[in-house]
Amino acid sequence: MKNDLLLRALKGLPVERPPVWIMRQAGRYLPDYIKLKNKYDFFTRCRTPELVSEITLLPIDQIGTDAAIIFSDILVVLQAMNIEVEMKPNFGPFIPNPIDSKEKVKNLITPNVRDKLGYVFEAIKITKRDLNDRVPLIGFAGSPWTLFCYLVQGSGSKTFDKSKGFAFANPKETEIILEKITLTTIEYLKGQIDAGADVVQIFDSWGGLLSPSDYSEFSLKYINRIVSAIKNYAPVIIFGKGCWFALNEMVKTGASGLGIDWSCSARNARYLSGGNITLQGNYDPAKLLSPISKIKSDVNQMINDFGKQSYIVNLGHGILPNIPVSHAKAFVDAVKEYKSL
Amino acid sequence: MKNDLLLRALKGLPVERPPVWIMRQAGRYLPDYIKLKNKYDFFTRCRTPELVSEITLLPIDQIGTDAAIIFSDILVVLQAMNIEVEMKPNFGPFIPNPIDSKEKVKNLITPNVRDKLGYVFEAIKITKRDLNDRVPLIGFAGSPWTLFCYLVQGSGSKTFDKSKGFAFANPKETEIILEKITLTTIEYLKGQIDAGADVVQIFDSWGGLLSPSDYSEFSLKYINRIVSAIKNYAPVIIFGKGCWFALNEMVKTGASGLGIDWSCSARNARYLSGGNITLQGNYDPAKLLSPISKIKSDVNQMINDFGKQSYIVNLGHGILPNIPVSHAKAFVDAVKEYKSL
Repeated sequence: MKNDLLLRALKGLPVERPPVWIMRQAGRYLPDYIKLKNKYDFFTRCRTPELVSEITLLPIDQIGTDAAIIFSDILVVLQAMNIEVEMKPNFGPFIPNPIDSKEKVKNLITPNVRDKLGYVFEAIKITKRDLNDRVPLIGFAGSPWTLFCYLVQGSGSKTFDKSKGFAFANPKETEIILEKITLTTIEYLKGQIDAGADVVQIFDSWGGLLSPSDYSEFSLKYINRIVSAIKNYAPVIIFGKGCWFALNEMVKTGASGLGIDWSCSARNARYLSGGNITLQGNYDPAKLLSPISKIKSDVNQMINDFGKQSYIVNLGHGILPNIPVSHAKAFVDAVKEYKSL
Repeated sequence: MKNDLLLRALKGLPVERPPVWIMRQAGRYLPDYIKLKNKYDFFTRCRTPELVSEITLLPIDQIGTDAAIIFSDILVVLQAMNIEVEMKPNFGPFIPNPIDSKEKVKNLITPNVRDKLGYVFEAIKITKRDLNDRVPLIGFAGSPWTLFCYLVQGSGSKTFDKSKGFAFANPKETEIILEKITLTTIEYLKGQIDAGADVVQIFDSWGGLLSPSDYSEFSLKYINRIVSAIKNYAPVIIFGKGCWFALNEMVKTGASGLGIDWSCSARNARYLSGGNITLQGNYDPAKLLSPISKIKSDVNQMINDFGKQSYIVNLGHGILPNIPVSHAKAFVDAVKEYKSL
């Protein structure tokens, strides 16, 4: 690997500067991505290995991040489990037949992952070939709870009130669903690692909608099983949006890194996670709309606050579609120009 | 006051059991409210003192909460400041001409509050008469930051990315807007107290979208000025959704109580707030969809966790429209039936 900053940071090994990548770096705000978006529908982009590789490499070539993350979507796992998922323009994910009653739980299958998601593994192989060891490749999956949220709600939501209501009213059926997603996700992530993913990240985008005790029951328990099953094959990063209250428990899973959002200061994050694990984050995506000089000074301050060791610079959530490329690049450049205090 | 549990809890005085009320208790899920909703549009309901009183008293009569909160909306303050605000059915607030550029900042006026919001003060007087000192009446306002979020975004949003982008790109103009809202809010809350509100609550619904340092700059600074200006006239509760990281700073404002959401355990909330201030919360509104027996045992546990002194039982955010009245009532009854450990 020519640039192994990410791998070293995840092992807690010394680095001259922290690595940097950006959640959703391969989409949304990049003009060359928009061109492909206008030409091919969302899941065609996900299912065509050459397109996946092209999209995945865009930010490496254009803004110079220290890691690539495979272009895909967390919801492909639900598709593999027999659930129809559409990606509606200007709306987001839409599930025409959500699991909104006990009776529908049986609609969910535990698939043969190589049959149903082989296209992701193929895309990873081709992307690894095209990357030619310039930077590591990150694979990913949604957490079972986060997939459950979409599966029951049927779309995105501010509160996922239907999903939470279902879980609280039907804890047994919820457990069955989460079990099936967990088994599928373990095979899916193993497949990604077999295909060449150097690191995997678990996105728990909606874990922060739960109280600490509900989080343990409905989310962390399953993340824990996934991390246990794969941590010996590749380093795992857990990113739980809004899950500051569970950082300490997340450390115990054996993950190599924890994603932090901007509601949690560097100091709080180091304290809550016990001070030894590698942390990743946590710039507010909306702050990339600040003037470039402010972005650069903020990044410098952020590295000083987290410390340059055991740290991966990133946003605290995905990049927004309205961020100028020059601002995203300034964010990355600021890390490369970092001068210690 | 026949039932002064809320007032005693806010002063930290001994109570035989904690008081209970529910955010948004006067709307949404109550069948008698829905009837009025189908008959009068939203702002007619807010501007007709007799309707306000009728709606405000519904939960006192029907589910037996220990406090009333005046039926209104945080956005009436923007209307008073010369901003058109509509409440669209199945959509929520809509501002046809948001302040989305520097040039539009001058559209915002600092009004004569008695002229523009006198209907709220009148509604408070009539409601107080109708309440006849059965329970205290809570007045309220949105925090300046939360009103700014709607003012710039033009509607509700998951991320308020336009509002945050405006703030980060135009900090000076943002300060001008927040100043004007702050001055208006101080007069508005003073007017509510003069009219008879026994307690006031400041809702910072979107403060949790900011990092701790941005929260200090864009939200807490203005909340602090408001609390300083009114705390000698009535006890103030600050509710910052997702603002666990600022609890310690909120204590320093001189507020009498802090609202807590369910992401923050009782133990964390007591620790982060320093252990002396009255706390209010924090049941997950979606958990009111649990079986009634579970709601009752959860409430008992919650009181044990927070402790029955210096504590106000509430949800961690507004009640959801799909909650059965019997479940809301079970929540309230559980507090009244509370038996100490």
